Amino acid sequence: MQDKSYLMIPGPTPVPPRVMAAMSRPVGGHRTPEFAALLERVEERLKTLFATKNPVFILTNSGTGALETAVANTVSPGDRVLALVTGNFGERFANIARAYGAEVTELDSAWGEPVDLARVERTLAEDKFKVVLATHNETSTGVANDMAGVGRLVAGTGALLLVDGVSSIGGMEVRVDEWGIDILCTASQKAFMLPPGLAMVSVSDKAQAVVEQNRSPRFYFSLAAHKKALSNWNTAYTPAVSLFYGLEASLDMIFAEGPANVYRRHILLGRAARAAVRAMGLETLAGEEWASPTVTAIRAPEGIAADDLRGELKKRWGVVLAGGQGILKGKIWRMAHMGFADRMDVLTGIAALEMALAGRGWPLTLGRGLAAAEKVFLEVD
Amino acid sequence: MQDKSYLMIPGPTPVPPRVMAAMSRPVGGHRTPEFAALLERVEERLKTLFATKNPVFILTNSGTGALETAVANTVSPGDRVLALVTGNFGERFANIARAYGAEVTELDSAWGEPVDLARVERTLAEDKFKVVLATHNETSTGVANDMAGVGRLVAGTGALLLVDGVSSIGGMEVRVDEWGIDILCTASQKAFMLPPGLAMVSVSDKAQAVVEQNRSPRFYFSLAAHKKALSNWNTAYTPAVSLFYGLEASLDMIFAEGPANVYRRHILLGRAARAAVRAMGLETLAGEEWASPTVTAIRAPEGIAADDLRGELKKRWGVVLAGGQGILKGKIWRMAHMGFADRMDVLTGIAALEMALAGRGWPLTLGRGLAAAEKVFLEVD
Repeated sequence: MQDKSYLMIPGPTPVPPRVMAAMSRPVGGHRTPEFAALLERVEERLKTLFATKNPVFILTNSGTGALETAVANTVSPGDRVLALVTGNFGERFANIARAYGAEVTELDSAWGEPVDLARVERTLAEDKFKVVLATHNETSTGVANDMAGVGRLVAGTGALLLVDGVSSIGGMEVRVDEWGIDILCTASQKAFMLPPGLAMVSVSDKAQAVVEQNRSPRFYFSLAAHKKALSNWNTAYTPAVSLFYGLEASLDMIFAEGPANVYRRHILLGRAARAAVRAMGLETLAGEEWASPTVTAIRAPEGIAADDLRGELKKRWGVVLAGGQGILKGKIWRMAHMGFADRMDVLTGIAALEMALAGRGWPLTLGRGLAAAEKVFLEVD
Repeated sequence: MQDKSYLMIPGPTPVPPRVMAAMSRPVGGHRTPEFAALLERVEERLKTLFATKNPVFILTNSGTGALETAVANTVSPGDRVLALVTGNFGERFANIARAYGAEVTELDSAWGEPVDLARVERTLAEDKFKVVLATHNETSTGVANDMAGVGRLVAGTGALLLVDGVSSIGGMEVRVDEWGIDILCTASQKAFMLPPGLAMVSVSDKAQAVVEQNRSPRFYFSLAAHKKALSNWNTAYTPAVSLFYGLEASLDMIFAEGPANVYRRHILLGRAARAAVRAMGLETLAGEEWASPTVTAIRAPEGIAADDLRGELKKRWGVVLAGGQGILKGKIWRMAHMGFADRMDVLTGIAALEMALAGRGWPLTLGRGLAAAEKVFLEVD
């Protein structure tokens, strides 16, 4: 049926009607007391969500722009950077550092595996780095990295820890100050339940000192400009005002549910999705211990053309999953349960997969994947 | 989760985003060439959907107002009216006729049973009636009556056939002219995928002749006033203009999918819902042969408090079903699959019921109801 579509890619994610309604407000000016007041209200709640005393800058660009902001303000040509790469987005973060002339040491995990903390510890002991890049939730593989663990290792070294939290924060707990994250980057179109276009970046005092000395060119991405503007409850350049209206509505929803409940919900959805995947005789890419609560990567079985089946899911069942990226292209399906997602969404995604696989002769019993997810839901509360 | 709710009552039904967007247009005046042009476009497509050459009047009131319009314009005090009652809404139609002083003969079917055509034939042979009232799709019991059959019987008698098509048209095929329906009443908040507030009424030439002679008082419900206005592409009184914008968007959707496909979709959803109900060890109120394609009434098993479970469905699973009305209060659940509904909606409703029943010790195997629905979906196309 036209117009009934179930978007389950790991961003953009579905936008709740009340966020859409907030964004439908007439566009207002951004150099106004009203906008300043909105900024102040939003800022306070972002700090709570980031668990930080640091300022959180709200930028009008995508998540990649946020990662570049982190790098452009802290990395100068020739700087030593350690990049912890667990997938496509870790790779991108490293490439941004390379684009700024950094000398990058890359610690790669096999895709589907998390950051190996022992290896990180050894590498940090052997060498001195100015900056460490890490990905909290690796969207391309469905892996959640232990960012508290990474933070503990980096803490003693004097390096700055820059973290890609694009597909984590808002859906998974992040404790910026406790974990020692100097710059945390996220974006609007994931667990924040907004359309793409905004990015949020928190910056520690330690990072701020480096920012001021840094020699890389930047203007739109200048944290100094953002800092100066925010101190006047303003933005450096024209902000996407409608998205700011939406951001306030989405924060209303997150705080009405309660951040702890939001995180629990995502953990539950991830567990149910993985239980269903196993009950269908399939495997997740990530092990249960480090599997992401916001996105599940599922290995396509031998003999099933993954991207072709994905096309069928969309066309026949209205369910939109993501495929694999980079070396995983054509080998996995990625199902997000991120942001405005609940238990029925997981059941919908699993039902579509069950029906499509059954139609292609994969030996499964209809309803078994769904029952496994239902069991997980019934165990709770 | 707040804000994620699955509305499955038989009206109001969920409104598609594109209909919502159409209704967000700035409100315009109704005595304008633009509104006249909209009315002309909408009228043409309503006639196609009703399968009629008769004018279709669009009224700013609910479905009950449409039923009253039909009665007030054709029934005078003392008139003989035959009411075919198969549930709560048939009862209401009869009561409206009584309110207008009619002498009503009521032919009641047991709730859950359809109109008994043989009995109708006998009654029509024994007595002379000015008007026959019938319900196409009885929302309170999930029964679809054979309106072509009723039409054939009434045709020879000189009586007018007034039909409540509130929960049928737009989701089930209705052929006003072929079936000999003199006045067909429907409303916006069912298969038309709109919020409540509009009603549509088609009136045959035969009925129009009676309208002109009728002695009952009416002003807002005057079909003569509506007829005069429509002949100038206008409405008699102030129309709910936003709902008209939405109506055009909803007709766009219905005609883009194709009415025949829309009817097939509803038949499929009904079949899947009933297969799932049986697989859970439950019974539908209506037999398979006369079960409604737009709403399924499910008997609550002995020992399960129906309305209490319905509360749990809403609170714990976000799924909103309707309960029983009149003599069925507390005895059934009604799940609509009407309008902006697809296969995943049926699975969502069944999953919630499955989980809630399992939690109350009803002996079912999780996933079996869902699998039965999936099987129905896989058999098609």
